[in-house]
Amino acid sequence: MYTLYYSPGTASMVVHLALLEIGADYRLELVDLKTEAQARGDYLKLNPAGKVPTLVIDGRPVCESAALLTVLAERHPEAKLIPPLGTPERDTWLQWTVFLSNTLMSTYRLWFYPQELGAQEHPPEIRAALQRKIENTWDQLEAHLSAHGPYVLGANFSGVDLLLTMLMRWSRNMPRPATEWPALKQLADRVRARPSWKRLYELEDLSEW
Amino acid sequence: MYTLYYSPGTASMVVHLALLEIGADYRLELVDLKTEAQARGDYLKLNPAGKVPTLVIDGRPVCESAALLTVLAERHPEAKLIPPLGTPERDTWLQWTVFLSNTLMSTYRLWFYPQELGAQEHPPEIRAALQRKIENTWDQLEAHLSAHGPYVLGANFSGVDLLLTMLMRWSRNMPRPATEWPALKQLADRVRARPSWKRLYELEDLSEW
Repeated sequence: MYTLYYSPGTASMVVHLALLEIGADYRLELVDLKTEAQARGDYLKLNPAGKVPTLVIDGRPVCESAALLTVLAERHPEAKLIPPLGTPERDTWLQWTVFLSNTLMSTYRLWFYPQELGAQEHPPEIRAALQRKIENTWDQLEAHLSAHGPYVLGANFSGVDLLLTMLMRWSRNMPRPATEWPALKQLADRVRARPSWKRLYELEDLSEW
Repeated sequence: MYTLYYSPGTASMVVHLALLEIGADYRLELVDLKTEAQARGDYLKLNPAGKVPTLVIDGRPVCESAALLTVLAERHPEAKLIPPLGTPERDTWLQWTVFLSNTLMSTYRLWFYPQELGAQEHPPEIRAALQRKIENTWDQLEAHLSAHGPYVLGANFSGVDLLLTMLMRWSRNMPRPATEWPALKQLADRVRARPSWKRLYELEDLSEW
């Protein structure tokens, strides 16, 4: 049994999408970022870093969204969210999942939380540098998808496409949103057409892309 | 058959250590960062991001050190670098591997490459903020290891300890090196006593910790 500690539209989204794709039984617990619930004692016991999401698996809290995507994908092989052990596709899946996590998610964190770089608001040159780092990753992903798409693994959808589409969504109010890259937009359109994506919007009460 | 494109002491180190732990046959190819070989055409064909390492597996290039650690660990289960599928220890392993990659490695990248934040050198407030981010992760790891150590998974050594010790080494010239945290130091001492660590120092001609 799974319990997902989530906040709408945040990094918990990919874990929630994976639960919906799998068709697993789960319970949702809202972590209200507006009241800083993620920094309070009861939540910090589950997640000492004070970040969303946490997935409680049979009573054990597990953190880090890209790890949770991998954990759920492995525990439910019938959902085909991750290629089987020993296949070249699995190596590709792991490469891009780690890449999205350590390049894109980490840079978004700085983009959205200037205080992590010691400022209330980013000075223009830092803002420009972070924007460039994020756009560079869209360039790299676009090159990969143009050559090997339409999905990250090629012909077949997998869990890494959920992670990528969530991260694309986070760019929607940036100067140049990820949907301006055509192969990325095509991938996002496919993922957004999936029942899991639509159901998540209802459950998390999301509206704008 | 494996070919590792590496540069001494960089992120390729964890992949090299994993190869040594496994006892796999592999070939080394030096990527000379001093002459910017990582940014030249022949290497960019293998690794479009221009980063070290790349591991060529049966002719296929795969990137991202934390992904490569996972790939090698999965392909060689007898080396016990990753716990088996379906165990709670595997969830813990994935959580910390992702955490080290997206929190610590990504922050080190900014620490060592100020140009990624648009500067030749970091202004003091940015430098202080990055240092704080890195030290915060030592605090989190220290808390985990004090309660659940001596290794990341508890009683047993695994591949994530190689990744952590490599990342600790990168802090050796920082204002407060990771070895100042006692449970972290104890873990690093154990990893540095392993034959794989000693052999790597010979092969990569490393000296200082």
